[in-house]
Amino acid sequence: MDFLNNYLIYLIPVIGLIGILAMAVKAAWVTKQDAGDGDMAQLAGYIADGAMAFLRAEWKVLGYFVVVAGVLLAWSGTTVATSSPVIAISFLIGAFLSAFAGFLGMRIATKANVRTTQAARSSLAKALKVSFTGGTVMGLGVAGLAIIGLGSLFIVFYTIYVKNVAGSTVNGEDMAKALDVLAGFSLGAESIALFARVGGGIYTKAADVGADLVGKVEAGIPEDDVRNPATIADNVGDNVGDVAGMGADLFGSYVATMLATMVLGREIVSHDAFGGIAPILLPMVIAGLGLIFSIVGAAFVKIKNETDSVQKALNMGNWASIILTAIATYFVVQWMLPAGEFHMVRDEDANHVIKSGIIPFTKDGVFMSIVVGLIVGTLMSIITEYYTAMGKRPVLSIIRQSSTGHATNIIGGLAVGMESTVLPILVLASGIYGSYHFAGLYGVAIAAAGMMATTAMQLAIDAFGPIADNAGGIAEMSRLPEEVRHRTDNLDAVGNTTAATGKGFAIASAALTSLALFAAFVGVAGIEHIDIYKADVLAGLFVGGMIPFIFSALCISAVGRAAMAMVEEVRRQFREIPGIMEYKAKPEYEKCVAISTKASIREMVAPGLIALITPIIIGFAFGPEVLGGLLAGVTVSGVLMGIFQSNAGGAWDNAKKSFEKGVEINGEIHYKKSEPHKASVTGDTVGDPFKDTSGPSMNILIKLMSIVSLVIAPHLNHLVDTSPRIQREIHRQSLNTHVVIKTDKKL
Amino acid sequence: MDFLNNYLIYLIPVIGLIGILAMAVKAAWVTKQDAGDGDMAQLAGYIADGAMAFLRAEWKVLGYFVVVAGVLLAWSGTTVATSSPVIAISFLIGAFLSAFAGFLGMRIATKANVRTTQAARSSLAKALKVSFTGGTVMGLGVAGLAIIGLGSLFIVFYTIYVKNVAGSTVNGEDMAKALDVLAGFSLGAESIALFARVGGGIYTKAADVGADLVGKVEAGIPEDDVRNPATIADNVGDNVGDVAGMGADLFGSYVATMLATMVLGREIVSHDAFGGIAPILLPMVIAGLGLIFSIVGAAFVKIKNETDSVQKALNMGNWASIILTAIATYFVVQWMLPAGEFHMVRDEDANHVIKSGIIPFTKDGVFMSIVVGLIVGTLMSIITEYYTAMGKRPVLSIIRQSSTGHATNIIGGLAVGMESTVLPILVLASGIYGSYHFAGLYGVAIAAAGMMATTAMQLAIDAFGPIADNAGGIAEMSRLPEEVRHRTDNLDAVGNTTAATGKGFAIASAALTSLALFAAFVGVAGIEHIDIYKADVLAGLFVGGMIPFIFSALCISAVGRAAMAMVEEVRRQFREIPGIMEYKAKPEYEKCVAISTKASIREMVAPGLIALITPIIIGFAFGPEVLGGLLAGVTVSGVLMGIFQSNAGGAWDNAKKSFEKGVEINGEIHYKKSEPHKASVTGDTVGDPFKDTSGPSMNILIKLMSIVSLVIAPHLNHLVDTSPRIQREIHRQSLNTHVVIKTDKKL
Repeated sequence: MDFLNNYLIYLIPVIGLIGILAMAVKAAWVTKQDAGDGDMAQLAGYIADGAMAFLRAEWKVLGYFVVVAGVLLAWSGTTVATSSPVIAISFLIGAFLSAFAGFLGMRIATKANVRTTQAARSSLAKALKVSFTGGTVMGLGVAGLAIIGLGSLFIVFYTIYVKNVAGSTVNGEDMAKALDVLAGFSLGAESIALFARVGGGIYTKAADVGADLVGKVEAGIPEDDVRNPATIADNVGDNVGDVAGMGADLFGSYVATMLATMVLGREIVSHDAFGGIAPILLPMVIAGLGLIFSIVGAAFVKIKNETDSVQKALNMGNWASIILTAIATYFVVQWMLPAGEFHMVRDEDANHVIKSGIIPFTKDGVFMSIVVGLIVGTLMSIITEYYTAMGKRPVLSIIRQSSTGHATNIIGGLAVGMESTVLPILVLASGIYGSYHFAGLYGVAIAAAGMMATTAMQLAIDAFGPIADNAGGIAEMSRLPEEVRHRTDNLDAVGNTTAATGKGFAIASAALTSLALFAAFVGVAGIEHIDIYKADVLAGLFVGGMIPFIFSALCISAVGRAAMAMVEEVRRQFREIPGIMEYKAKPEYEKCVAISTKASIREMVAPGLIALITPIIIGFAFGPEVLGGLLAGVTVSGVLMGIFQSNAGGAWDNAKKSFEKGVEINGEIHYKKSEPHKASVTGDTVGDPFKDTSGPSMNILIKLMSIVSLVIAPHLNHLVDTSPRIQREIHRQSLNTHVVIKTDKKL
Repeated sequence: MDFLNNYLIYLIPVIGLIGILAMAVKAAWVTKQDAGDGDMAQLAGYIADGAMAFLRAEWKVLGYFVVVAGVLLAWSGTTVATSSPVIAISFLIGAFLSAFAGFLGMRIATKANVRTTQAARSSLAKALKVSFTGGTVMGLGVAGLAIIGLGSLFIVFYTIYVKNVAGSTVNGEDMAKALDVLAGFSLGAESIALFARVGGGIYTKAADVGADLVGKVEAGIPEDDVRNPATIADNVGDNVGDVAGMGADLFGSYVATMLATMVLGREIVSHDAFGGIAPILLPMVIAGLGLIFSIVGAAFVKIKNETDSVQKALNMGNWASIILTAIATYFVVQWMLPAGEFHMVRDEDANHVIKSGIIPFTKDGVFMSIVVGLIVGTLMSIITEYYTAMGKRPVLSIIRQSSTGHATNIIGGLAVGMESTVLPILVLASGIYGSYHFAGLYGVAIAAAGMMATTAMQLAIDAFGPIADNAGGIAEMSRLPEEVRHRTDNLDAVGNTTAATGKGFAIASAALTSLALFAAFVGVAGIEHIDIYKADVLAGLFVGGMIPFIFSALCISAVGRAAMAMVEEVRRQFREIPGIMEYKAKPEYEKCVAISTKASIREMVAPGLIALITPIIIGFAFGPEVLGGLLAGVTVSGVLMGIFQSNAGGAWDNAKKSFEKGVEINGEIHYKKSEPHKASVTGDTVGDPFKDTSGPSMNILIKLMSIVSLVIAPHLNHLVDTSPRIQREIHRQSLNTHVVIKTDKKL
């Protein structure tokens, strides 16, 4: 046990390596599956090429960004004592690993898709196995790389700044510096995540909306028809948006959650067997446990017969990994954290007396906070499913409102989306309240870490969806027998549900992560309150609340513009290339791919820069307390807009899908192509950018702005107490007599 | 001058009386205008009867509410020292005057409409004069009754609690009690306003959407066609929603702004010639000036020739009253406020020393804050006009996106609405920052008071719109000559613009008012911070942010449901009453009126109760600081949702209207009945509940929740410092030893 105590810190990246090894085994298995005949292979090749073309274009732009941001970070790292130019290296590694995780996931997804189609020719069980294994590769890759990266960098910085420095303490400025430099890793990861999510989201929906508007509505050909010039772009979109974009998103959340907990953990004086850093190591250890049990849980995901429930199999795997992780976490918490009471250093006054009104917490409290996190995550998924699932009241209400036309369908969906914010917010507010109750701010952070522990499994389930979707597309395009399409449709339907619940989970984790980062920011910036009763802080709250609105506006109007360009290109091809409709001529797929690629890369820049630059401007111009108000505004408004848009989109989508089997409205059965169905297609199209571009981007927006704030927090430290009022006071004083202003605030 | 100093307090209600006299003169003038021939009179009669039927039904429900709420208030007034059962009387008077103001406005509007139609048979100048005079009656009635009510009650309570009480001071608990009781007046007014706005909003849009969906889309008959059974309900809706609803809304804002400033004014120690209450009297005096100069400004609103610009005439009147009021305000501030520096009592520590970092302000600062308020109001109107006016980029972008169908039209409108939050929020944030900079929290409040000073003129301009709209409806239904309809259309188009800018103004004033109430609440509740860095306050912020979403969802789905009932009724009439389409049979207008009435009364209850009850539950369960977090969340989210929905709706409306004259998209001209036009009708229909039901309700929601909080604040005073953490601390202590908890907080 002693040995373990001494080397636990080194074990963390090893667990990450185990994840990567498991990933390699699974990737090799997928690769060696049958990729089908020539037609299928050719179509899959187009999709894979299109996806890589997008990634290359994206990386080129991000390359410039990363270099510029890295130089700025390196320079800024030299300006304050609690940072270092090394932060730039940390940033670059984070950015690289995030991009690499997306690349790995997409590589395997574009192999797994056609292999799933081929597997679906024999059985549903086989098709599930191939598609889910493809998803697992993504999940293990993301989690493994994140743990290796964060774990190794922590060892390095801990060794450089703390362990080998005489007189340093784990709660002192040296550790603060190590963690500040480590925050660069998270900043790098989250920056890439934002661009990947927004770029991918614009790509996939521009292609999807464009393909639907001309293909389904104007030309009357089915979705994924090989004659539609935009169909390849549409399938590429599933990969770049739903696979690479989401992978980078969860990579970022996973890292940010651990980091925030570590930063808060520094403030806990812990007399443990790990040199006092148990509260800092704990989140990484929990993540490691989650990774291991995700590998175990993946083994539960299988079915035997054609009639077995795919959803049930996925739930089995999910629950297995969550429950096993929770049990193991209990023992790890008991082992790592010492008995007795903890409190955070910031809750002490100058004489090291705990301030009145603050209570310490115990290791049992820490475990309870983790349980709160798991409950919040589960409830959020359940609520999201209710609001977006077929056959439940919300979707049924939209179906009913489709009978009076396009407008009432839209009104119905918007109302459902707005209403769907109520329960998640109450759950989230209770979660904040509860996790804080059990272990203070550290509790809020570790709750998020608990929720994110099984990210590998969550992501496997999430990434399985677009692989199945692609497999169905390839089956349709290759005009394979009905039964094949039937099997892939079965998988795809489950994928739609998991996509919706995954979004609920992602927004909850992002909200808790942001709060943890927010709390960490307050500590690093050295402020004691964020008092919204001050006019300037309140002004910051307003501006922060507005940012998710302009961000969403930019995202959805980008999709609108790009989709219109796509529509015009498809119309042109139908007009100018004779024989497309008779399968005699091949459409110019690559032109549509190019339109989506170009538009998404161009349009991702503005929203990305808003997220990155706003906190910097506000922080330096108005000080950390106003920045705190801004962050609170962004977080509240971002969570609300995220839930609203994701759920409205999901509900519209399933309202439309319900028409495939026929729906009853006022005693009449309506099918596809009926007037109510046309109205439901309008809703689905409006919902597309909501649920796949702007909605899920809210997660990253709020996290990224919090991380940027955390990274600049040491620079703002000296700005504390120079709010306008005080500046004027100083000014007034200096008119009368010369006074020297000293700031004696320290971290 | 001495005489004026002593009797200024009594002069305030006299100014209100002058307003009411001017109103009576104008009302008599409107009434004696020619009401047209038999057909017109009959139609106008239907509309007037329908409007009164709604008011009676609404009053019945509100009667119960007012009695129950009054009893609760009376009872609660006995429980704390700083309140009194008299607050119930204050509440009843506020509720009654608000309802009465709405009634007066609607009475005259339902007379002015047909008289405007008749006047339009002779000239545009005459038609403008009749319709604007009708609007002026509404404006003067609202402002006059508000000033009389608030002014007289203040005299009464000031006399009872302060003036005749030995040893009382104007900054002490006695004045606090007087103002707390006075807050009941504002609570009564704002409660009625909420129900009137929501009920009226649901009514008007259920009728409008229902009438359009069957009439325009299915039956292919024009708007306001006498054959459409829902057309009378639609015209009634203009009166109950846009006239009575808006009148009650602005009555509430006007009163709330004055009240908040008065509550904050109590905290200023002022050695003035008015017994120390100049800062308390100032907002009422400014409102009085605004009323007088609104009467003056109304004289500027006139045109001579058919080609004169109606918009210019309205602008002339508006600017005249604003500028004259601003100039007069300067002299009044100089006269009333003493020289030297003020500060707020709460900014002192226990030894009456001003806390560090707080700076005092001067009377020039107070005037500058008022100027900031006027600038904010003006900029908000200009920005709103840009985002909703024909021919400007936002509306043009929606028109372009109508060419690819319903879905892209909706996406375009949503994006415009979201984007349109940016500038108003920046203006508002700067306004908060600026007015605070010049005169602290009192500055924020007086800025709102300055903005609201010319409410009489604002409301005259706003109410003119629906009167002109109705006049056009009557002209169409009576099948009057083209030129008549042409003149009323001219007025109606201007009315649409003023409706949009009026909404921008209303939301800005509501935001500033809420902040002022928020600041007043903080003082009365006796808290020092609202620290969002505390977990419970942050949870409150989240819950508060969610409320505008559920409120909007309830409003728009209520419209959706009611509209569907209307559609079914109209379809039934077309089916079951032969000869309607040939003008041979009269539709059963009263059935449609009944549907709208019933639905709106039923559906207004849930959102109304949410607004009223939430602050009470949160305040008593979690204490005033969490309630402060809730209010901040409601205010930020409510302002954003209000701007988003109002502007999206306005832009969709004008995108649709643009097709009437033909619009060019990609070199092709599209007119009404083209495919892009149909898409634009969908957007307009979605926008209807956005811009006339949920959007403008946000104003009242945020004000009402702030007022409820202010009224319960004295009851929460003893809950200060019993946040969960402290309670647990107390609990922990009491496990060890018996401790007696004392709260020594005082106002």
